Amino acid sequence: MTDALSIARDLIRCPSVTPTDAGALGVLEKLLTEAGFTCHRVTFSEAGTADVDNLYARIGTDGPHITFAGHTDVVPPGDESAWSVGAFSGEVKDGFLHGRGAVDMKGGIACSVAAVLEHLAANGGKPRTDGQESGSGSISFLITGDEEDVSINGTIKLLQWAAERGEKFDHCVLGEPSNVETLGDTIKVGRRGSQSGTLYVDGVQGHVAYPHRAANPVPDISRLIVAISDEPLDHGSAQFQASNLEFTSVDVGNTANNVIPGQARAKFNIRYNDNHTQASLRALVEERMTKACGNRIRARIVWEPSNSNVFVTKPGPFTDLAVSAIEEVTGRKPELSTSGGTSDARFISSYCPVIEFGLVGQTMHQIDERTPVADLEKLTKVYAGILQRYFG
Amino acid sequence: MTDALSIARDLIRCPSVTPTDAGALGVLEKLLTEAGFTCHRVTFSEAGTADVDNLYARIGTDGPHITFAGHTDVVPPGDESAWSVGAFSGEVKDGFLHGRGAVDMKGGIACSVAAVLEHLAANGGKPRTDGQESGSGSISFLITGDEEDVSINGTIKLLQWAAERGEKFDHCVLGEPSNVETLGDTIKVGRRGSQSGTLYVDGVQGHVAYPHRAANPVPDISRLIVAISDEPLDHGSAQFQASNLEFTSVDVGNTANNVIPGQARAKFNIRYNDNHTQASLRALVEERMTKACGNRIRARIVWEPSNSNVFVTKPGPFTDLAVSAIEEVTGRKPELSTSGGTSDARFISSYCPVIEFGLVGQTMHQIDERTPVADLEKLTKVYAGILQRYFG
Repeated sequence: MTDALSIARDLIRCPSVTPTDAGALGVLEKLLTEAGFTCHRVTFSEAGTADVDNLYARIGTDGPHITFAGHTDVVPPGDESAWSVGAFSGEVKDGFLHGRGAVDMKGGIACSVAAVLEHLAANGGKPRTDGQESGSGSISFLITGDEEDVSINGTIKLLQWAAERGEKFDHCVLGEPSNVETLGDTIKVGRRGSQSGTLYVDGVQGHVAYPHRAANPVPDISRLIVAISDEPLDHGSAQFQASNLEFTSVDVGNTANNVIPGQARAKFNIRYNDNHTQASLRALVEERMTKACGNRIRARIVWEPSNSNVFVTKPGPFTDLAVSAIEEVTGRKPELSTSGGTSDARFISSYCPVIEFGLVGQTMHQIDERTPVADLEKLTKVYAGILQRYFG
Repeated sequence: MTDALSIARDLIRCPSVTPTDAGALGVLEKLLTEAGFTCHRVTFSEAGTADVDNLYARIGTDGPHITFAGHTDVVPPGDESAWSVGAFSGEVKDGFLHGRGAVDMKGGIACSVAAVLEHLAANGGKPRTDGQESGSGSISFLITGDEEDVSINGTIKLLQWAAERGEKFDHCVLGEPSNVETLGDTIKVGRRGSQSGTLYVDGVQGHVAYPHRAANPVPDISRLIVAISDEPLDHGSAQFQASNLEFTSVDVGNTANNVIPGQARAKFNIRYNDNHTQASLRALVEERMTKACGNRIRARIVWEPSNSNVFVTKPGPFTDLAVSAIEEVTGRKPELSTSGGTSDARFISSYCPVIEFGLVGQTMHQIDERTPVADLEKLTKVYAGILQRYFG
């Protein structure tokens, strides 16, 4: 059986809590190998983290090349006695497939594999459907076992590994549970970037009774906090809401109320849109700081490393064909959204345009995570519709 | 012998490090009783502190009543092996009386006692010298053993005790080492008040990605810090420099850079002059806060208890006669100063006008604390000159 439900059940029965694989990648490798894919199992290591298995599978040798990305690892089940069915049993009850990973995102992977297998079976084992001579196109799967935890030995390294092999991706569909309430309501086409930093202001310590011999950093850092955060960083863009900077803490730690302290520091985090790159954003904040400092205040910003850059897949032929496939199956015109938290799409976006579309996320990470079986069937049809349009 | 040097040596030989008396008050009690004073030894207690001895001695029953205040306790000697002579030996070397308390303030007490004994001896055992019929005047000594440490069982309680007995003081001379470089350079006529408080700003905690669901207290407290501390509280007064408010700390303690915190707090201390009472000062700061809050920011101030009220003895007949006596003996016209730290004068000022005049403070609290023997003689003459003018 290669329908989505049976693939999803097989995957759920592997208790693949990060960083354990528990056979999950093997389920996919077997199916894809049988369908003609070339499969690579790649294990990545890094000091202080567990080794993690990954799978890269491709059929076809030339473009266009669409890749389905995803992760087989899941978050822990929590209190298993609180589940209606076993968290790793893959039981169907009242029309719902229950189990950890049902929506995030073994269900999504199962639908993409089922859709690809159907597509290949209907087209003589080749991706392209238009009978063109030049190139048969390629379909691949980028599947990691390291997404839910530290995300160090997963997609980011798998993409580097593939690039070193000369793999080129034209487009990517990531099967994360993008829908908020109903299948078809939302495609994620980007995420805001995240950048944290610490603002330091140096003064001169002294006694409160002799303020002329000291320089108090407390009112100075207060001025800088207002100057840096008072005006919006922008007013949004076509795909994004406005960027936003929040000071999350300001600290001195002085307990002596007769002492003017020597230093103050303030931590901040920025969620930023595609009006900025990481570099231009840092420059903008530092410019505001420098202007507010004048010749008097001594301040500096220490930026934290960040791999959460902003990215967006702008509306165009690729998003159009996804919207069309979704509308055909669900009768809904999905919103192209850039809201919400982070995913592996932030890494993929450096290599090719990426959209996220999968199941409905409501029960993800919860007790009794589950999806309607009907949604598995519909999502498989959506992916099949995408493939038809992509190679048609 | 009742000259200042011998009294000072007797006092220094009592190692009266707070809260130990070590016989110091007894030295004074014996001399004063012999001169006709009524002496009271009063011991005060408070949970968590050591019991401390105090001495109140008075001669005369009516006004005018001048009291000499002081303390016989001293700070610890530190490394005694580093002293040129024993810290409690009371030795004279090269014209200097050495020892812990030589200037702060056993020397000052010794001069006041010597001056009073001389004055009484020259006036038939009575304070007044002008032969008036009504009233012979009164002289008293308010001597504590609890000034250098917590100041709980000392002058503040001795004054309350005296008030309950019906004692009324018209003027006070506190023999603290008021002079900065040379005997005669400075009379202390007041001190700034000190008031501390904590400003709290309440926001609404939330996730940095959803700032519209949160209210960040960090920029709000920053605005309040600037609004409260930006403008001076006043521009000084006849006797005082300008009042000053310093924010000494601002703290949130949030370590999660994706969380907008729910509260921020900032500590401040104010040194204030006689343009303000404690109540008017608090009202002024709260008015600035309220104005800056508008209808949006939720803030409050928690004030710390303070017994350091501002006080000043304004120029007038009492300061004039002290200045005149000092000029006659030293040839210098002393500055009427309100600078520097705190002393028991802050308590005495609630009962009567008080001035501080004593020895030169340069070596106080140091290894080899010492005073020129010549200064003891001059200070005795200054006090005698004050008594002559006061009762003349």
